[in-house]
Amino acid sequence: MDLAARVMSVVGRTSLSESSTSPVNNCQKIGKVMDVSDGAFIGGFIPSLIEKQRYPYSRPEFLYFSDEEISLSSDHSIRPVLCPRLPHKMPLYAGYAEVINAGKTIQNEDQASAKMLVLSQHQGTEMNGFHDEKKFETRNGSVNEVEDDPMLTPGGDESEKSNIFAPRADAALFSIFDGHAGSAVAVVASKCLHEHVKSRLCEILDTLLHLDRHENLNFGKHRSESSYSMSKVRITLDDECRIRSEQLVKGALETSFLDMDEQISQDKQVWRLPGGCAVISVLVFLGKLYIAFSANAGDCRAILVSSDGTKALSRDLTPSSERKRLQELAYRNPELIGNSFSRLEYSKKLTRSDLKSRVLYRDWFMDGWAVKTVNETDLRPSLISESSRKRRLLNTIGVSRGFGDHHLLTVDERLSIKPFLSAVPEISVTNLRDMNTLSDKDVVIVASDGLWDVLSNEDAGLIVRSTLGSTDSSDSSRYTQAAQDLIAAARGQQASGNLKRWVMNSGGHASYDDITVFVIPLKYCAAPPTNFEEEDDDEMLSLE
Amino acid sequence: MDLAARVMSVVGRTSLSESSTSPVNNCQKIGKVMDVSDGAFIGGFIPSLIEKQRYPYSRPEFLYFSDEEISLSSDHSIRPVLCPRLPHKMPLYAGYAEVINAGKTIQNEDQASAKMLVLSQHQGTEMNGFHDEKKFETRNGSVNEVEDDPMLTPGGDESEKSNIFAPRADAALFSIFDGHAGSAVAVVASKCLHEHVKSRLCEILDTLLHLDRHENLNFGKHRSESSYSMSKVRITLDDECRIRSEQLVKGALETSFLDMDEQISQDKQVWRLPGGCAVISVLVFLGKLYIAFSANAGDCRAILVSSDGTKALSRDLTPSSERKRLQELAYRNPELIGNSFSRLEYSKKLTRSDLKSRVLYRDWFMDGWAVKTVNETDLRPSLISESSRKRRLLNTIGVSRGFGDHHLLTVDERLSIKPFLSAVPEISVTNLRDMNTLSDKDVVIVASDGLWDVLSNEDAGLIVRSTLGSTDSSDSSRYTQAAQDLIAAARGQQASGNLKRWVMNSGGHASYDDITVFVIPLKYCAAPPTNFEEEDDDEMLSLE
Repeated sequence: MDLAARVMSVVGRTSLSESSTSPVNNCQKIGKVMDVSDGAFIGGFIPSLIEKQRYPYSRPEFLYFSDEEISLSSDHSIRPVLCPRLPHKMPLYAGYAEVINAGKTIQNEDQASAKMLVLSQHQGTEMNGFHDEKKFETRNGSVNEVEDDPMLTPGGDESEKSNIFAPRADAALFSIFDGHAGSAVAVVASKCLHEHVKSRLCEILDTLLHLDRHENLNFGKHRSESSYSMSKVRITLDDECRIRSEQLVKGALETSFLDMDEQISQDKQVWRLPGGCAVISVLVFLGKLYIAFSANAGDCRAILVSSDGTKALSRDLTPSSERKRLQELAYRNPELIGNSFSRLEYSKKLTRSDLKSRVLYRDWFMDGWAVKTVNETDLRPSLISESSRKRRLLNTIGVSRGFGDHHLLTVDERLSIKPFLSAVPEISVTNLRDMNTLSDKDVVIVASDGLWDVLSNEDAGLIVRSTLGSTDSSDSSRYTQAAQDLIAAARGQQASGNLKRWVMNSGGHASYDDITVFVIPLKYCAAPPTNFEEEDDDEMLSLE
Repeated sequence: MDLAARVMSVVGRTSLSESSTSPVNNCQKIGKVMDVSDGAFIGGFIPSLIEKQRYPYSRPEFLYFSDEEISLSSDHSIRPVLCPRLPHKMPLYAGYAEVINAGKTIQNEDQASAKMLVLSQHQGTEMNGFHDEKKFETRNGSVNEVEDDPMLTPGGDESEKSNIFAPRADAALFSIFDGHAGSAVAVVASKCLHEHVKSRLCEILDTLLHLDRHENLNFGKHRSESSYSMSKVRITLDDECRIRSEQLVKGALETSFLDMDEQISQDKQVWRLPGGCAVISVLVFLGKLYIAFSANAGDCRAILVSSDGTKALSRDLTPSSERKRLQELAYRNPELIGNSFSRLEYSKKLTRSDLKSRVLYRDWFMDGWAVKTVNETDLRPSLISESSRKRRLLNTIGVSRGFGDHHLLTVDERLSIKPFLSAVPEISVTNLRDMNTLSDKDVVIVASDGLWDVLSNEDAGLIVRSTLGSTDSSDSSRYTQAAQDLIAAARGQQASGNLKRWVMNSGGHASYDDITVFVIPLKYCAAPPTNFEEEDDDEMLSLE
């Protein structure tokens, strides 16, 4: 993903209160961050001393590549397609492949992670305390890895099983992070996001599993309405309150995305973490797929491929589609754009010659358009401007969601952009039980914009179905072969006579960008490796 | 509509900047309003001197009732059903009926208006000036009526036709206003909203009519995609910008609703205007129905009744359905709730005994639920509380949208509630061209909660279809008869032996509330009385 040339990533007076949100834990921390940013570094710039990275650049660990191999694989002129060395060890036998860009950036700015999460109920009741201590080691300056998780295979984490009476479950999490202005934030997110998700799921696991079981019991009775009144069981919720297990998973994803962004904000005080990343995650849990995306149109996308065709599981979140949110923020906090930008959207690009003429516009509360007479204020650059073909926020950045960018300022006015960026994910849920039949050719494709820039959803679906149709169903590497074929199609071949040109088989321009693809088989998602005990329900219900 | 007993409507330090929005015209005015409120009245309370009302209580003028008749009709023990004296003079032959409540309030707090709008393009180009001067006479203390509009019949306003070359069109606007804490705001809105709508439509009429004509020309070619690139005609819009006539009508409605609320804010400086109102409007224009509603669930509702059954044209806007908007406001502007409320929603009502236990909650960015440990802050009343069965905002008001309530404060903490209330309408559009056939039994029913509290959409549809089936299609009063039958069904009969009890034919409780109903025939909506000239297109296009 490109950033406009005028972008600077520096430590500035970022108003973190606009974007950090976890209300319970973070209020105090935000204050601290502000102090450090403003006080410790003269002029607000990161001194070049802070060049150390907590997680140096690498490729996903599930590839099992040596440093030398990683170095060799990043040849921009050859662009080899990388696949996991041990496909049968991938969570849920998911396929994976990646390729580096054709020279746009030295490093591959895409990152990916694939994890089995072995979940067990947190035992503490004083959540405010333990939750933070567990996660934010950086505050003590400690460099301990948070990676206490089974890497690749389910059930590998024995330490989590010490209390055999605690409720347990397994989940799988696949994420793609599309970095901009460097790969640092994408790398950190790929190492840590699953820990935040796991932690949030473990907080609520007992209630979640209980609800899920009762929803399944009632499945036959209320197929269309799977909500379940918690008042019917011994949980201390009011009668009117109907909460479903799905909503607890959503809440865990929502809060963990903000946890991740908050961690990046804190890590930035100690480590070098320029830039940001878009993110899309697929959580496979209790027979459902949760697609959480805090990503830009085309940057990352998930589609479902079945015999019925393809179906988008994520939607566009762009400065354009988020216009009303961004405009309302500027309306309520006009200091965020100062006198440098106009909040309004106009039907045309205004120049001085438009002064006193009439123009169509829309403001934060409008789906429609109204007319106004152009005045001097309207000649300011638009909050959401059109530069070339992509709409940019504050004339700078083409994304409106994701992680990082905490210190991104506009060049001329030194306005902080982070308050407009949101780490909040949108979440779509697919219940695999609602799908009539699942064949081993039904998959979810998750990929970065390197793929979607040159392949339509339909093309991608056809390629995968074709590969899976010609491979043996017992071959654990077939989904990785499908991912490979997707990459090969999107990257294309070097043109004969001009090795710097990449063309697709169709003859059209191939993708010059980093490309990353997961192909996740629904068959193994539908029957996830759960291993929680059949404990006595009523003993496990109370939230207290 | 009831208000909680603890509501006070007084002039307070209402932060108008949170709710008044028309960005171009109103910025300065907001400042003025604040000054007057805070300065002119000691302690911020309206002195009792200001008891004069610009528009005294009355019933809709299209009823043609004398003051004496109005007085007689408000007998709470008899509850006569009122209908227009001249049904054939109602715009589009729409039916209407109303009945007063059974003693809940002295006055009928519902109001209604039905207007034909004869539109012609505003000639001024300096919109900022003329637009405001035209509408807000109150700033000069003048009491001139704004009513220069043809009341009931199309084409009656000759003054508008002085320039026969200006583009013209007719529209019809039907509105119901459900007042709370008095009828004053509902009365003002019923007298003025159509003027604001008309003014906004006239600002943009030339462009609007031009686009509409070209969309109709392209109707056959692109039935499913009626958007039209303005770049193809001589309008000075950028190539990429596709704006449809429908979006200009929406913009006119959106801005005029805020104009109306701003007028109420200003009128309040001079006239006595306590309370507020919910509103639902049906604009019939160029073959489409625009339902604009800034109303609460059940307060006002519009449904479409055809041979296919009934279909809701408005949706619920309640403190509950608007939770995320309200919570985000409190998150970004914590001073709005001070230390008196908790922003979070909880899965149960918390008491002191819940301290340190775990509870499910959700915050402004969450569709899902997460868990937290209860602390002192959580024991504060919830921003959106459950009192009896209805969710209330700041423990006070059961609505989240509408006009008025500018000076509504919470009793204990004197927090201003207005910043949370929005006058912004949601708008649904029904294209009558998309309906296969229109019979004279196809209607839109718009009614206040007095009706919907006791009749389902389906019941209401059946009653209307039955009445229309038994009346002659040439009878111009048949839609009023249908409205009458709806009211009669919802109001029911006095129980024999207990004249204070009202029962429905089914035996169930009838409505004790004010009831107001429009029955609008789609046949006359589909062929609205337009009379604009067939001028040369290209001469009329430029916005300049």
